[in-house]
Amino acid sequence: MSKLLTDLIEALRCLPGVGGKSAQRMAFHLLERDRERGQRLAQVLEQAMREIGNCSRCRNFSETPVCNLCSSSSRDRQVLCVVESPTELAAIEQATGYRGQYFVLLGRLSPLDGLGPEELGLDRLAERLGEGEIEEMIIATNPTVEGEATAHYLAQLARAANVRPTRLAHGVPLGGELEYVDRGTLAHAFGSRQSLD
Amino acid sequence: MSKLLTDLIEALRCLPGVGGKSAQRMAFHLLERDRERGQRLAQVLEQAMREIGNCSRCRNFSETPVCNLCSSSSRDRQVLCVVESPTELAAIEQATGYRGQYFVLLGRLSPLDGLGPEELGLDRLAERLGEGEIEEMIIATNPTVEGEATAHYLAQLARAANVRPTRLAHGVPLGGELEYVDRGTLAHAFGSRQSLD
Ligand SMILES: [Zn+2]
Ligand SMILES: [Zn+2]
Repeated sequence: MSKLLTDLIEALRCLPGVGGKSAQRMAFHLLERDRERGQRLAQVLEQAMREIGNCSRCRNFSETPVCNLCSSSSRDRQVLCVVESPTELAAIEQATGYRGQYFVLLGRLSPLDGLGPEELGLDRLAERLGEGEIEEMIIATNPTVEGEATAHYLAQLARAANVRPTRLAHGVPLGGELEYVDRGTLAHAFGSRQSLD
Repeated sequence: MSKLLTDLIEALRCLPGVGGKSAQRMAFHLLERDRERGQRLAQVLEQAMREIGNCSRCRNFSETPVCNLCSSSSRDRQVLCVVESPTELAAIEQATGYRGQYFVLLGRLSPLDGLGPEELGLDRLAERLGEGEIEEMIIATNPTVEGEATAHYLAQLARAANVRPTRLAHGVPLGGELEYVDRGTLAHAFGSRQSLD
């Protein structure tokens, strides 16, 4: 196999879920049938890696200083949802009807990894809470040990600014069978049972 | 989602087996964790799409006029294996101990698609057969209707040049259970049964 083809197959393996065999299939497919779209991908990828930064207001991915979402006039300014990463922001946008603002931590509190309040932009978050517009802060960090510790810290930040902190509900996933739900979730769901009246 | 991010997700869908959801996961992964390798992929992909052409001797992918394989002095010059595409050449190289030459048709005879002897480079193939070095031509086209028709044509070409044409054996795949082998293959394997002496 030619040097450049070997390099291409190796480079494609940076994509998550792509092993040697899929990478080879992708390279051959583009070369044999889709060079134009391969060129287009190369160009967009290069531009995206270079130009996409973070919104100065919410820290979500954006190639403009302030992202579309932050500059939109049709989003509710009284609610702010805090997530760990852009992936989770996208998941919430796609799954729910949420119409408020966001703040992306780009991580979670993790002193061992050198991630403290400063790295997560919590000074900027505190500033926003201090502006007085926000009434509720939805804490949507992941239900991991570090995510929960981060949630705890964020709740204190909110209370200090007279903003009501809320947290996503935990429990048995819709359509999930009790048998297959992990024990921690099941115990939590049991303890947080709600009356049906 | 930003324009550039949307464009990137859309562009990633040119990769075989990548739908909207995986494309989004890939884009976020590169942006959040692997920009350097994303940049590298963009650069290699651009170069590969632009520079990889076909070897003037065997028509396999190559960024040099004559490919490594054709210019190698350690490959047997008496045997030539004809395949439909570079993918199949790679499969044979990776699975077998074959040490001869190749010729890549970049298609199969298909008059309805405008693919005739000229498009498949059969004039060049006839020239090589005429050089007198080749003794055996292994016909490794796919066992489809068009592949078989192509094989038939190629066999005539070989015979006209006093080269012995051979064809890959068909039959029950190793480890394949008879119950699950398609009827055509089973009938062929039955008809071509070999004595065990
Ligand atoms: Zn923003
Ligand atoms: Zn060659």
